Amino acid sequence: MFLFDDLAKIQLVDVIEFLGTIAFAISGIRLASAKRFDWFGAIVIGFVTATGGGTLRDLLLDVPIFWTQASRYIWCTLFAFLIVLCFRKFLVHLNNTIFWFDCIGLGLFVVVGYEKALALDYPVWVCVSMATITGIVGGMIRDILINEVPIIFTQELYAVACILGGILFSILHYLNVDLAVIEISTAVFVVVIRVLATKYRLKLPILKGED
Amino acid sequence: MFLFDDLAKIQLVDVIEFLGTIAFAISGIRLASAKRFDWFGAIVIGFVTATGGGTLRDLLLDVPIFWTQASRYIWCTLFAFLIVLCFRKFLVHLNNTIFWFDCIGLGLFVVVGYEKALALDYPVWVCVSMATITGIVGGMIRDILINEVPIIFTQELYAVACILGGILFSILHYLNVDLAVIEISTAVFVVVIRVLATKYRLKLPILKGED
Amino acid sequence: MFLFDDLAKIQLVDVIEFLGTIAFAISGIRLASAKRFDWFGAIVIGFVTATGGGTLRDLLLDVPIFWTQASRYIWCTLFAFLIVLCFRKFLVHLNNTIFWFDCIGLGLFVVVGYEKALALDYPVWVCVSMATITGIVGGMIRDILINEVPIIFTQELYAVACILGGILFSILHYLNVDLAVIEISTAVFVVVIRVLATKYRLKLPILKGED
Repeated sequence: MFLFDDLAKIQLVDVIEFLGTIAFAISGIRLASAKRFDWFGAIVIGFVTATGGGTLRDLLLDVPIFWTQASRYIWCTLFAFLIVLCFRKFLVHLNNTIFWFDCIGLGLFVVVGYEKALALDYPVWVCVSMATITGIVGGMIRDILINEVPIIFTQELYAVACILGGILFSILHYLNVDLAVIEISTAVFVVVIRVLATKYRLKLPILKGED
Repeated sequence: MFLFDDLAKIQLVDVIEFLGTIAFAISGIRLASAKRFDWFGAIVIGFVTATGGGTLRDLLLDVPIFWTQASRYIWCTLFAFLIVLCFRKFLVHLNNTIFWFDCIGLGLFVVVGYEKALALDYPVWVCVSMATITGIVGGMIRDILINEVPIIFTQELYAVACILGGILFSILHYLNVDLAVIEISTAVFVVVIRVLATKYRLKLPILKGED
Repeated sequence: MFLFDDLAKIQLVDVIEFLGTIAFAISGIRLASAKRFDWFGAIVIGFVTATGGGTLRDLLLDVPIFWTQASRYIWCTLFAFLIVLCFRKFLVHLNNTIFWFDCIGLGLFVVVGYEKALALDYPVWVCVSMATITGIVGGMIRDILINEVPIIFTQELYAVACILGGILFSILHYLNVDLAVIEISTAVFVVVIRVLATKYRLKLPILKGED
């Protein structure tokens, strides 16, 4: 009941953030399930995946942690858990859908992270760092907790997409482009990079060391 | 000398916290020893296990970190190390005693975490989150440092006990029950859940995913 | 261009910090390369290795995070990456040089960490803790991200050198020794301990537990 109530008073950007949070939570819950964590463990991993990046960003910027200011992030995670619980048989075939959610979430999180630092008058490189941290740290903590090497270090242009998105935001902001246009361009740009990188298996070269 | 001095000016709740800190520190030191860490590494792991949860809580709530405000947490850890050093041959048979200390520590840490958030006028879900974080994060960091999947994701109702304890605290607080009664009830409740869950191997179901 | 500009306006202590940051970044980049991370992943690991300790220190002390206040830490990391990229064939033979950089960086980071806590009027044990955290946490996060047991738990007197350095700083400061003398003595002391410990394979005993 109050979940829908929550949904009623929020705006378009919140809807996209809602989808992004759910997508990240689902990815965490499914990975935890594959590792045979129990229900509660899976919910914890889902919550950490969805909120970890924003939490570190808010800690570094010394502002109130976003998920202590509104309850909807906890409801999103529980909702994501219900989705996985009800549709787990179909979710394997839904991987494509989840990939899109994850991309859109990443794009939006980059925009949110950049704007939070910008509002505090930080210089460009801090804004780009915070955009990247918001996008990737949740997944990194998830992978540390399930004792794997973070996937962002192996997936195609995951973190690079965040940085490039942050740089595009900086350029458009410097050119005094309208904020709504910047937001949409940046989010779309991040999504496009991820989609192309995944489709064509684009990767950065590997530094060969000792061999 | 000054350790006993420290002990003289503290209250009952501090004594229980003292026991909880020692119990958590002992569990960290013993796990580190099993991984063949040296003395200092074991002390570091012990300190992190005992203080990690409260540290993250204080970071998230943006209040001064508790162990920078009083030296007794460092003395507790060194004392725990001495205990392990002197009684390591008997400690294997003391596992039951340590389990009780750990349970009591968990119960007390839940109360401490809840009250810290409550004192800052945070809503119920934040208080419950902080209670849980105070109880479980120390053990999570310990397990990450020794490169294992955090035990809270595999042990019986470990984190669930914290959440249920937090919910009981919320209900009793809503009903205007006397604070001392709430504190004791919550701590005892957490201990009872853990003891029963361990005795009867109660577990939450596992989400089966891809198979 | 602006890198040299940056260098021009900084002091001797900044030059040593610059070398320390580069040394830590190089160690992170080389370890990440050995794990077959791509370029960007290697840069991230390098940056985290060089700045992780100071970041946790600033979070715990609740002061602005140092690398959000000046861009040179990001330039240092990129510069370290270029060094590894250009000289990777020679870097294997440069291990000795890197070891010295790493030692000097450690010594300097201990001094920086101690002074930051001292300037905020924290008691001695907090200053020593912050000195140690500044020195070791970057390497710990690096090892967690590449999914290894942190090297500080296995290398000779790594963290112990930081603590002893912090204690020396405390004693000299208590004796009202001139600050510049304290800084140099502490840094040299840490370096000497590390060099001797590595040369003579000095180790703390291991706590044998269950066996």
